[in-house]
Amino acid sequence: MQTRQLTTDRERSFVVVLDDGEEVIESLLAFARENDVTAGRLTALGAFSDAVLGFFDFASKDYIRTRLSEQVEVATMVGDFALQGDEVKLHPHAVLSKRDCSAWGGHLLEGHVHPTLEVLITVAPDNLQRRTDEATGLPLLDTAAR
Amino acid sequence: MQTRQLTTDRERSFVVVLDDGEEVIESLLAFARENDVTAGRLTALGAFSDAVLGFFDFASKDYIRTRLSEQVEVATMVGDFALQGDEVKLHPHAVLSKRDCSAWGGHLLEGHVHPTLEVLITVAPDNLQRRTDEATGLPLLDTAAR
Amino acid sequence: MQTRQLTTDRERSFVVVLDDGEEVIESLLAFARENDVTAGRLTALGAFSDAVLGFFDFASKDYIRTRLSEQVEVATMVGDFALQGDEVKLHPHAVLSKRDCSAWGGHLLEGHVHPTLEVLITVAPDNLQRRTDEATGLPLLDTAAR
Repeated sequence: MQTRQLTTDRERSFVVVLDDGEEVIESLLAFARENDVTAGRLTALGAFSDAVLGFFDFASKDYIRTRLSEQVEVATMVGDFALQGDEVKLHPHAVLSKRDCSAWGGHLLEGHVHPTLEVLITVAPDNLQRRTDEATGLPLLDTAAR
Repeated sequence: MQTRQLTTDRERSFVVVLDDGEEVIESLLAFARENDVTAGRLTALGAFSDAVLGFFDFASKDYIRTRLSEQVEVATMVGDFALQGDEVKLHPHAVLSKRDCSAWGGHLLEGHVHPTLEVLITVAPDNLQRRTDEATGLPLLDTAAR
Repeated sequence: MQTRQLTTDRERSFVVVLDDGEEVIESLLAFARENDVTAGRLTALGAFSDAVLGFFDFASKDYIRTRLSEQVEVATMVGDFALQGDEVKLHPHAVLSKRDCSAWGGHLLEGHVHPTLEVLITVAPDNLQRRTDEATGLPLLDTAAR
């Protein structure tokens, strides 16, 4: 277990509303770059016209992709922002629900907003770093790095 | 994408514990009115004796309702508070799970607490406004309005 | 409904990264004891190699346990920390998703991290108390107690 207390004296809260048709990962990374986000967390709710969920497969060291080619509610989404080198990255997970309310979840690889996604973001005046893990190839948080 | 940085100098945190039998939406709106909430966000966990989940249908511009007439765990719930005109509104999504742990999600239209719902609420000293979207009839956030 | 405004003047934010093989509940309680957490909330995302979800059964006053003996994504996890007597307790709920992205949820009784769990924790300089409810045997929050 690694533990890191974040600097929170000047923590900032944002409401980001994604518009119809916007791709969620691209849009949130654009927000992060524009606002110099180097450490942050989010929750979100809304809906997508289509999305791709991932399940990490250790054998292939890649995500198995499940495409949902239909309107889904974003029943919940959680994520965090951190740096990898100089570049800000988003680690997003979501639970999406279909017309019959059945729920599907995983790593959120792609999602097109329809008609809205309401994202609540808290940004800490700190920085978090990711480093590629040799064993899995995944960019894991390294709380000791700054 | 609309972005709004909230005033957070005097952000307030609340724990709200709903009692057995209380209806979740009514109760949280009563809390919001009593505490002059004009911008806020929540996460919650607990259980319901029955609930109604919604999936927004663009053809009818209304929610398709799925009633769960059985005890369910509230595996997660997220939501935000904003004003529409002078009235505070709650936008709540949830993932509910049955006895076999199967998960069901969507817009939370109704839920009766049994035996408890623990709600963590952060209130910003700011205001957020919703405005009816012509295309869908939905009350979408308008971060430019105050 | 019980309502309690938390003292938030010196609220602390932590990022806790659980390592491969760690058990989630034990680890987060160890974190809470080491950091004198007496009131807090968390969201988390990552993955488990196996987990146990619970559904509370009112007849037996115990959890019906569903064991997931396979790799699952932690699509979302929410929880809160409070005291019961002098001891800190964690109330954790989660939504877990399998290889086919099907989602399963409930009270999180056990989970072994593989390869990581990223936990965002907010700690209030306050204390929350749980008290055993006679009717159900569950440790419910009592916001009036300190």
